[in-house]
Amino acid sequence: MANEKMKITLPYLLYTGDADATFGAKTAEGVLHWCPDQCVAQRTLPGGSLDLGIPTMSLEEAFDAGARTVLIGVTNRGGIYPTQWTDDLVQGLEIGYDIASGLHDRLRDQPALMEAAEKYGRQLHDVRHWTGGPIPLATGEKREGKRALMVGTDCAVGKKFSALAVHRALLEKGANATFRATGQTGVLIAGEGVAIDAVPADFIAGAVEMISPANTADHWDVIEGQASVLHPSFSGVTLGLVHGAQPDAMILCHEPGRKNVRRLSNRPMPSIEETIIAHEQAAKVTNPACKVVGVSLDTHRMSEADAQAAVKQIGAETGLPTTDPIRFGASVLADAILKMT
Amino acid sequence: MANEKMKITLPYLLYTGDADATFGAKTAEGVLHWCPDQCVAQRTLPGGSLDLGIPTMSLEEAFDAGARTVLIGVTNRGGIYPTQWTDDLVQGLEIGYDIASGLHDRLRDQPALMEAAEKYGRQLHDVRHWTGGPIPLATGEKREGKRALMVGTDCAVGKKFSALAVHRALLEKGANATFRATGQTGVLIAGEGVAIDAVPADFIAGAVEMISPANTADHWDVIEGQASVLHPSFSGVTLGLVHGAQPDAMILCHEPGRKNVRRLSNRPMPSIEETIIAHEQAAKVTNPACKVVGVSLDTHRMSEADAQAAVKQIGAETGLPTTDPIRFGASVLADAILKMT
Repeated sequence: MANEKMKITLPYLLYTGDADATFGAKTAEGVLHWCPDQCVAQRTLPGGSLDLGIPTMSLEEAFDAGARTVLIGVTNRGGIYPTQWTDDLVQGLEIGYDIASGLHDRLRDQPALMEAAEKYGRQLHDVRHWTGGPIPLATGEKREGKRALMVGTDCAVGKKFSALAVHRALLEKGANATFRATGQTGVLIAGEGVAIDAVPADFIAGAVEMISPANTADHWDVIEGQASVLHPSFSGVTLGLVHGAQPDAMILCHEPGRKNVRRLSNRPMPSIEETIIAHEQAAKVTNPACKVVGVSLDTHRMSEADAQAAVKQIGAETGLPTTDPIRFGASVLADAILKMT
Repeated sequence: MANEKMKITLPYLLYTGDADATFGAKTAEGVLHWCPDQCVAQRTLPGGSLDLGIPTMSLEEAFDAGARTVLIGVTNRGGIYPTQWTDDLVQGLEIGYDIASGLHDRLRDQPALMEAAEKYGRQLHDVRHWTGGPIPLATGEKREGKRALMVGTDCAVGKKFSALAVHRALLEKGANATFRATGQTGVLIAGEGVAIDAVPADFIAGAVEMISPANTADHWDVIEGQASVLHPSFSGVTLGLVHGAQPDAMILCHEPGRKNVRRLSNRPMPSIEETIIAHEQAAKVTNPACKVVGVSLDTHRMSEADAQAAVKQIGAETGLPTTDPIRFGASVLADAILKMT
């Protein structure tokens, strides 16, 4: 069954199968953290030892309780699909579930799952792969509505969490705002979006234009960021994202104390200042007025005192509202964004 | 039959089937222009009216004359595969040919072609799609050897022709140089390479590192360019290409007189000066010493006198060696590149 729009039917049954501690459950944990109301239950198979701290149910019980998509909640090294789950998942498709997965291996490469999905008219969502219909090429033409984009000094500096926290803070202030997912876990949290690192290179900016369409003038899209225009491995993804997003405001995300670019031990981190300059220059191509308006720090490896000191120091150095949105709240970032209205 | 390396066995039989003037033959014409020695013959089917100006042969005759890959030389609107060619192409696979295509439709989506390729152990090369093995992620680490990259103010400003002409000029000057293809027609001309606009976005820079590996210190890779870092639709492809290429020298390609970005009628062309600055800033991430060292103009729509005037004027404005490599030769660009050794 083709998935034309990567629009996932919520809520979820979080599925960890027979996984044990050798698996990570970051996907399920991320979804549970940001949308607990969309997680009806968890399901394990005999031998499984992961516990997400929500009720454990059978496929039938969770379906009766409202769950409509089985979310493969675990990742192993290599993102390999555990074939011993197939019989159980086929039963899920028969009961009426769709299935969503962020694994590298595709659900739709499992013949038994494909056959059952076709037979029962269900969707298989491989969010790490673009399997929807054609993506239009980007036009760069101005569209109505406002957009805030997370950018950063590196990968894994809290862009997804910052976007979600800023989105929530905007809603709390009464603003009209939508979170727009550009990565696999973000797509699973939002129930829609495109993992833009997986689309053919020509369509990066077009995918972002597609998921952040024209809107009312007072509406803010809060768009998940990816990598950095200064990252030698993934800069193309970031630049396409910046140009497609046409941001009015950007939030710079950073982990204080990181010495080298993640997984590139020979490459020192770029400074916050040069990262801000590079992203503002890039953004000018589709919105000359765009500015970095705030800094979001990931201080989860630091003590409370060190985190406070880092927020104060980087705020002073940049002259921008600075916070760790998870630790100290995202209110100042939401205020900075709303000033650009 | 999987194509693991996109390494095409030359020479070609140029195949235009039953195509008439409603088809374009730009693919075949480009390959014929740049590597006539690799084009043994052309093959048409009854009803076909295209003539490339080389001998017409049957499949068997061309194979006996040395041809080893059937090159689908035409493109129609939409890049649709003409299914009425399948019986003839299956015969080609049986005789011993591989098949290469730059169509949007994939050869490997034709069950009869796939079956015959498997049966006879032949390759199907869909150069517009990446179907090889895994591409490594880019590391950005310095590698031995020199690299010249074509960049430009827009798409379709002569980057492929410039790279091929510069490569030829370098060889004529006795330099050690290789043309590296990053687009579909370039791949068909070189017989290898990757159409980087078709790889998943995360792997743009990695694909370029892969096709331009470490080499001897005096060797120049001349790398085909794509789009522009200032192009709102395709900038991601370009930035990944710039970072993956780690160029030592760049040649700026431009078509004088173009008012608006191609196919984006509302967007004025960026100036040559801002295009040079943007690409030099981008290149610094993986090679701080990289400079634009010359300008290559596409003057084919201009009179001889206008073309000469444009070369003179833009050379004066930029202070860089400037030419139309097709019209006036690429020698000055090759010299400018060799000065960076």
